[in-house]
Amino acid sequence: MEAASLVERSLLNALAFAESGNPPPGLADAMRFAVLPGGAWVRPRLCLAVAKACGAQDLQVAEGAAAAVELLHCASLVHDDLPCFDDASSRRGRPSVHRLFGERLAVLAGDALIVLAFQHVARAAATRSDLLVGLVLTLGRAVGMPNGIVAGQAWECEPAIDTEEYQRCKTAALFAGAAELGAAAAGVDPAPWRRMGEVLGACYQVADDISDAAGDEAVLGKPVGRDLALGRPSMVMDHGLAGALVHFGRLVDACADSVPPCPGRAAMQAQLRVEAARLVPEPLRVVAA
Amino acid sequence: MEAASLVERSLLNALAFAESGNPPPGLADAMRFAVLPGGAWVRPRLCLAVAKACGAQDLQVAEGAAAAVELLHCASLVHDDLPCFDDASSRRGRPSVHRLFGERLAVLAGDALIVLAFQHVARAAATRSDLLVGLVLTLGRAVGMPNGIVAGQAWECEPAIDTEEYQRCKTAALFAGAAELGAAAAGVDPAPWRRMGEVLGACYQVADDISDAAGDEAVLGKPVGRDLALGRPSMVMDHGLAGALVHFGRLVDACADSVPPCPGRAAMQAQLRVEAARLVPEPLRVVAA
Repeated sequence: MEAASLVERSLLNALAFAESGNPPPGLADAMRFAVLPGGAWVRPRLCLAVAKACGAQDLQVAEGAAAAVELLHCASLVHDDLPCFDDASSRRGRPSVHRLFGERLAVLAGDALIVLAFQHVARAAATRSDLLVGLVLTLGRAVGMPNGIVAGQAWECEPAIDTEEYQRCKTAALFAGAAELGAAAAGVDPAPWRRMGEVLGACYQVADDISDAAGDEAVLGKPVGRDLALGRPSMVMDHGLAGALVHFGRLVDACADSVPPCPGRAAMQAQLRVEAARLVPEPLRVVAA
Repeated sequence: MEAASLVERSLLNALAFAESGNPPPGLADAMRFAVLPGGAWVRPRLCLAVAKACGAQDLQVAEGAAAAVELLHCASLVHDDLPCFDDASSRRGRPSVHRLFGERLAVLAGDALIVLAFQHVARAAATRSDLLVGLVLTLGRAVGMPNGIVAGQAWECEPAIDTEEYQRCKTAALFAGAAELGAAAAGVDPAPWRRMGEVLGACYQVADDISDAAGDEAVLGKPVGRDLALGRPSMVMDHGLAGALVHFGRLVDACADSVPPCPGRAAMQAQLRVEAARLVPEPLRVVAA
């Protein structure tokens, strides 16, 4: 089964669990809308790729962990889009959750998705409880305090901000978590995978800054020029577009180099380069390669 | 050690974990403000009381589970107070989190507290991973979809609402979870404790409705008359103050009856009656007894 199919199957399973019995219909709809059809599933596919590279035979736990990462990512998008933060009217080419369902259900959908992520990983590890402490703590570190994506978002509320620390929390932390979870789900020590995930997250964030500055709204499915308009920290603002592209290229190299020794190392490195190249807008790709 | 001291110690431990390293200071402050000094700790004390009644010798897991329940309760209060919900200006006699720290940090504090609850229970069960699947799923059921407190809050957004189902989700679910977690932490089948927790939650909700209609703002530390003002479902609105008091008395009896067979059953029943009596405003207590 393709990685994307595994992710979709697991997300559908999680949503069906949340909708079992007699749920409030509005919240059930808002959660489903926030999660599916979904974006590129970069993080959950990373989780699965690491589990495979580590030699995992049975992907059940990794599949659940991958979907949990995506649920947490979706929760953060729903809350980031709220009027008090970005006040984004669209996301992935559709209305944002709060525009379609109202602010109250958007707050609750984010909350319920966070909870669902932990429920889902516990269900996936029901017969491998020996793995669950590590999985829950890794998920928690990636999204919570002191250095997860929630902490990253909170740095936006501080008077002084360090762009790299901010992006390390806001983006790299969940990539690092996805990579670590893949290893942990395979029963392998996750620590060596942390750096690779962080560097990939940094790649992704810089690519996002570049897309925000030079991308096409129709292709991205979300408004561009928001970082500049909102005065948010951005590698393009700090170093210019050309500087950001050079930085991006170096990060891709560093990412491939940081794949730890494992049965599937060479394949993983090749896949990383292919996927990284796709992250920057088409006309700039040759510069970044 | 007194139950309240155990709860406080565990909450301080959880907050210290969230603040380790280099956290964004505003979010760290908002989380601490949301959790401490805290209210009556009814739910975490219930969790510990059930663990003891079930004969638990080592309370480490129960202490962590109890604190996790309180963290989730605090998260729900912070989000319920947001401008898009109750727009409450005060809570426990102090400003609400969003009034003091702003709406953005209030959203993030709720998110981070939800995550922290799961991190905390995983840390508490680090050497009892065999218990963790049950603990995480029980916590998730109490707060998430389809019937936890988040679902309860979401019923407020529906055009038609069943008061009992609404209150079962919004209040009883977390009481049920607290009772079940106490049993699960003691290594005992939690299922028989569910009913007792639900009934206690229903007692608490009716007492809350009564306090809202007839309580003293200075004693409660929060505004009264909000249910009526916001047109929220309430047992007092449905059955009048006298009817609500009769219902409350019956629920207290049902709660004591529903304590499952366990080593500490009689003591638990006595404690329940004492604590339940304290839930209604002083002048009405004789009626409810």
